[in-house]
Formats: sequence, structure tokens, C-alpha cells
Amino acid sequence: MKISILGTGSVGQALAGRLSGLGHEVVMGTRDVAATLARTTPDGWGNPAIGTWAVANPQVKLATYAEAAAFSDSIIIHAMNGNAAIDSLKQAGEANLSGKILIDITNPLDFSKGFPPSLFISNTDSLGEQIQAAFPDLKVVKSLNTMSNPVMINPAAVPGDHTVFVNGNDADAKETVMDLLKSFGWEDRNILDLGDITMSRGVEMILPLWVRIYGKIQTPFFNFNVNIAPKA
Amino acid sequence: MKISILGTGSVGQALAGRLSGLGHEVVMGTRDVAATLARTTPDGWGNPAIGTWAVANPQVKLATYAEAAAFSDSIIIHAMNGNAAIDSLKQAGEANLSGKILIDITNPLDFSKGFPPSLFISNTDSLGEQIQAAFPDLKVVKSLNTMSNPVMINPAAVPGDHTVFVNGNDADAKETVMDLLKSFGWEDRNILDLGDITMSRGVEMILPLWVRIYGKIQTPFFNFNVNIAPKA
Repeated sequence: MKISILGTGSVGQALAGRLSGLGHEVVMGTRDVAATLARTTPDGWGNPAIGTWAVANPQVKLATYAEAAAFSDSIIIHAMNGNAAIDSLKQAGEANLSGKILIDITNPLDFSKGFPPSLFISNTDSLGEQIQAAFPDLKVVKSLNTMSNPVMINPAAVPGDHTVFVNGNDADAKETVMDLLKSFGWEDRNILDLGDITMSRGVEMILPLWVRIYGKIQTPFFNFNVNIAPKA
Repeated sequence: MKISILGTGSVGQALAGRLSGLGHEVVMGTRDVAATLARTTPDGWGNPAIGTWAVANPQVKLATYAEAAAFSDSIIIHAMNGNAAIDSLKQAGEANLSGKILIDITNPLDFSKGFPPSLFISNTDSLGEQIQAAFPDLKVVKSLNTMSNPVMINPAAVPGDHTVFVNGNDADAKETVMDLLKSFGWEDRNILDLGDITMSRGVEMILPLWVRIYGKIQTPFFNFNVNIAPKA
């Protein structure tokens, strides 16, 4: 497939590498391609800057948000920081998004007051819902936002069963996303479809716990499992 | 031990039954003992009303919040609805609470707009923190609020490993609470101490996901597990 990824940070890089490894053609979207490629300072976690990463991964092309969105034949992955999420889609342009599936990994994390972050949307609304409302012709499927990027692309990085949540309004779009998840190694039994896009509230609101657990255990190699007793 | 439980709903009943079965003396606190004992209509989930339950469990006495708090020799369990949480403690009275451990199971759930509920405190504050701030001489330990009451008192109700979170400012109080959890059957490896009382934000904010999962799978016999990869 021709898959585009909006966002060139560590989440976007991990997904781009994984998808191209699976044989997909991948284009990453960014605001200013030249400025993005000029970045070579690793982030605070030691992840390579996108300029360095792009040299090592020449099969993945960078383009503007609009070019990247136009390139996708079906799936666009939304790997932006939450505070730039809506704007990246505006720049991508409705015509380039219409009818396509957006796998929305964004979280409304507000680091402006330091760590741990709060959420800038929560409780009675969610970023997933705001994106769907702003782009009604886009099929928004929220998923993968509740774990670190090494776990997203390789669930075997965490032993045993653990859960990836999926929610969105379009059943066919969710099926397509679940197929992509399975290609990453996710088992059917560990994919939990919660329902429509309003369910984004629940999955976005576990991020505050996620970051606290991360702070406590000091490894990104963990995930939540929903452990359910078999019905009697 | 002499343990008191504030709240006579299904959570309070489950804990009172379990604790008295373990040999503890248990008193449940309520606003108006006579009015509480007069309730005999089961709740919407089919749980017995407290009046019916009390007849079947004569070893557990009902008392006012103040009498119940005074009865406790160390541990008070806070099994109130979130919107009555602070008021129950005001009625219990600071003198009866001072120096004691409060196991705070309350959640700031707001059902006023129907299901699923939102939270009436979240994100930059929590009910656990508000309780600790209002009663500084109480050793508030948040725990057990992230699961259904049959799972709280019997973790074996859900197969495999799954997590109970603990957080609070007093290390000794947390140890006492963890010992009580172990007496319910919780294994050391499944008890995750997140840190101080501000960590209540994280564990209270997963309730919106909890209620959505419950709505989806239609059984209270589930729990979150934090599945962590062993360090390399």
C-alpha cells in the first residue's frame, strides 16, 4: 500500500521503518521538508533526529503534509504531537484527506507546566472527536496511542497478552486498521474495539497513568492488558 | 483489627463481608442508620439493599460516620460515591480520623448527564488529593478504585496476573494497606506503588476507560494488568 505518516518524530520514524519493512511505500509529511531534514540533534531520549534517520532510511521520502496526504491510497497515520494535530490536517488539506482512513495516534498532552503532563482536552471531549468533527470526510480510527512506539510496531517487545484499543465511527475503516495491526504482530484476541469515536475519551485519559507508570518503572517496554475472566 | 467502612453500597458490602470473613471486626458508617437499614430494594445491578444485607450479615454493625470512624483502630475504608466523599469525612469528624489510614476507593464519577459518566475532578487535580488536603492528619492511600468490587476482594476472580495500584504520601500507611491487599489474595508482584497522593490523577482518570470496557464486554470480572518486559 501507499501509506503516509504525518509527523517525523520517534513515533513516525518507528512506524515508517516498520511499514517500509513490510513492503509498503511510505511518505512522511512535515511542515517544511528542508528544515526537517536539517535536524540532526538526537532528542532527549537519545532517538535520532529525523535528518539523521532519513539518511539511514532512504526508502522513506519526506514531503509536505499536503503531498504526503495526497500520496496515500488509503491509510494516513497521524503521528503528530497533540498540540499540532489539527493544524497538520488543515495543512494536508481536505481534498487530500477525503475518504481516507486516519489512524490517529495523537494524545492531547500538555507539557507546558512540566512533567507529568496534563491533558489539554479531556473528560467531556477528546482529540479524536475533535479531529473527526473538523474533518467529517476522514475516517478517523483512534489506535496505538496508549503505548510506546517500540511496542506499537512489535507487540512481542512485551511478553504475554496485552491490549491495543481501536475505536472509530466507520466499521470498514476499523477492519482495515485491525488488519494493519495484525501485520505488526498483534493477535486478534488482543485487539479491543471499544466502539465509536467518542470512546477516544477513555483511551486518551489513560495517558496520565501511562506517563506515571513510565516514570516509576523507567522502561517504555510495557503495556496495559485488559484481563477478562471467561464467562461462566 | 477494628476496621471501619464509610459507605454501605455494594463496594462497602463486599469489603465488609470479606474483612469480617478474615476475622476483623467491621463497622460500616452511614449518614442515618435507621434510614439506611430501612432500604430493602435491590439496586439496578441486582445487588441487595443494605437493609437486606445487614440482616444476612449480623456480625457487621452499622453506625454513624463519626461512630464508625471512632471505632477504627487504624484503617478506615472509604467506599462512598465520589460526590459524597468529602462530606462523609466531615461528618466523621477530624478528631475521629486523625492519624488513621484512609483507603480511598472513591472515584469522582459524574453520572448527572447519564452514561458513560464524566469526572467532576480530573487532570490537574484528583479526589484523592482533595481528600488529603482537606484532612491533613489522615493518611490517605488511594487503592482499589480501578476495578469492580468482586475483583477487589478476590483477585482470583480474574485469571492470571493483574494490577492493583497504590499511592499515597505515607510509606508506612502504604505498607499496611499492601498487607491488607495481600490478605485478600493480591500477590506482591501485582501491587504497583505509583508514588505520592498526586498519582491519584492517573488512577482516577482511567475510570472513563473502565466504564467503556465494562459497557463493551458486559462483565465486571476484568481488570487492567500492567505488563512489563523484564529488563535486559
